[in-house]
Amino acid sequence: MSTQASIPGVFSPVLTPFDEAYRPALGRYVKHCRWLREQSVGLAIFGTNSEANSLALSEKRSLLDALLEAGVEPSALMPGTGACALPDAIELTRHAVRSGSMGVLVLPPFYYKGVSDEGLFRYYAELIEGVGDDRLRMYLYHIPPVSQVPLSLDLIDRLLDRYPGQVAGVKDSGGDWNNTAAMIERFAPRGFQVYAGSEAFLLQTLRAGGVGCITATGNVNPGPIVALQQRWQEADADARQVGLNATRNVFGKFPMIPAMKAAIAWKSGDPAWATVRPPLVELNAEQRSALQAALNDNGFDMPGADSLADN
Amino acid sequence: MSTQASIPGVFSPVLTPFDEAYRPALGRYVKHCRWLREQSVGLAIFGTNSEANSLALSEKRSLLDALLEAGVEPSALMPGTGACALPDAIELTRHAVRSGSMGVLVLPPFYYKGVSDEGLFRYYAELIEGVGDDRLRMYLYHIPPVSQVPLSLDLIDRLLDRYPGQVAGVKDSGGDWNNTAAMIERFAPRGFQVYAGSEAFLLQTLRAGGVGCITATGNVNPGPIVALQQRWQEADADARQVGLNATRNVFGKFPMIPAMKAAIAWKSGDPAWATVRPPLVELNAEQRSALQAALNDNGFDMPGADSLADN
Repeated sequence: MSTQASIPGVFSPVLTPFDEAYRPALGRYVKHCRWLREQSVGLAIFGTNSEANSLALSEKRSLLDALLEAGVEPSALMPGTGACALPDAIELTRHAVRSGSMGVLVLPPFYYKGVSDEGLFRYYAELIEGVGDDRLRMYLYHIPPVSQVPLSLDLIDRLLDRYPGQVAGVKDSGGDWNNTAAMIERFAPRGFQVYAGSEAFLLQTLRAGGVGCITATGNVNPGPIVALQQRWQEADADARQVGLNATRNVFGKFPMIPAMKAAIAWKSGDPAWATVRPPLVELNAEQRSALQAALNDNGFDMPGADSLADN
Repeated sequence: MSTQASIPGVFSPVLTPFDEAYRPALGRYVKHCRWLREQSVGLAIFGTNSEANSLALSEKRSLLDALLEAGVEPSALMPGTGACALPDAIELTRHAVRSGSMGVLVLPPFYYKGVSDEGLFRYYAELIEGVGDDRLRMYLYHIPPVSQVPLSLDLIDRLLDRYPGQVAGVKDSGGDWNNTAAMIERFAPRGFQVYAGSEAFLLQTLRAGGVGCITATGNVNPGPIVALQQRWQEADADARQVGLNATRNVFGKFPMIPAMKAAIAWKSGDPAWATVRPPLVELNAEQRSALQAALNDNGFDMPGADSLADN
């Protein structure tokens, strides 16, 4: 069995539940992670859809520790550890590595725009050398629609040349299939693992030689997404992909994070799940009704969602 | 004398010097702040040009404390305390207020794009109420070219209505004079202090009823900028503005932060001043030569720059 076969093919950027005072809700968090793990979804905690950049470093350390204490296996964890400030990225990455996480997902520093490949190379190089741990497996996080700081193919090439043991792969959330295909073609032969940033590209990614997807809607529709990832070579794969797209498109009509939290609040019967931290805003009553109607039309289901309630 | 007359009309987002290992260089930092204060420049530490988002929260606390211990008067300090994560913004703002800073300059959370005015209102409201100190004077930081998150006039109006005692003013780094003029016209009658984000707009801002500028090049050209701010009603004001623009335009031909640090390294004779933290990159030899030639042609001078060396 190859190493690749032993890591999750579908990760979810785990939603971070809050209480009404915007404090992280550890009980709901552990329940949600267990529910995802029961469905074989890997835990990309501290991603964009986790509101990770709205969390203090100490809050992230506490959330990670809470999962470990609850018995979540670290081999299923890919914490997001990128930060604008190198010392923050080094501290959280080191903590993730020492806790046994299978990898870390690393945003580029995203405050300055128009930065050079040389500057980004130095950032990632300083991070790898600052962590100074051979167990580090770093996945690069390419998400220019949000970060506004793209990671070029040339940058990845240079990082792979210098740190072949640490640079493990990428999450491509650029939304441009040609870029994903180019990453797979150019770097997969060197063991570089390409995850699509959305299940909309899951089948294409697997057929081209990528390893899977890290996708927001993994939080609410994990079963069908994992089913396609595990059965992509079967005859009904294209039909499964069409089904995934239909569900994703419903959520895509709303602000994604508030919509997923609203869906969990609805299906679990725990209204506090709808809470998001500023600057995000929860769905209003009209949006909630529209979301529920659209999901009902879609035949959407969340088996076991009642286990996510913490009330 | 009004309150406004007692606060600096020119602030500099203070450059943060590093040593060769990218650690904040406290000695150079204190020397630079003293040199700026000798020229009546206010200290907007932790701004965009301070590489503030490349600093950990603990580093910012240490830098602020080092200035206070060195005897820098807190009434001249306007620390940048905005952060993507509300808890970080609350912690640093509280520290700044308790240390006696005249105000704080607050970026919006800048990871998510396309956020609503409602979400930004909640962020600033939670910050003000989380700090919970009547001494807080908050200056909003509008810099959409970098943050990609603009602050609308309607948002400012709503914040001023709710928190008239805390919302003190704005730094407008949008580069659009019409927006600056609209802020002054609409909010200055309520005591709202508008600072231009560049000395290129200093004379226009003062003539329209704004209070001054908070400008990067205050780090390297403080004397002439302060001279215009103090003598803007004299006959030679337009000629002074032309002179300021000429110097600014030289720096504007290069990456601004590395260019200013290169100029200080050159004029002080302390080469470590050129160091920037990743993802920024220092000027290369060719750029340094071109900058020095252009500054020589411009007649650029930094009186007292030898006091900035820490070697």
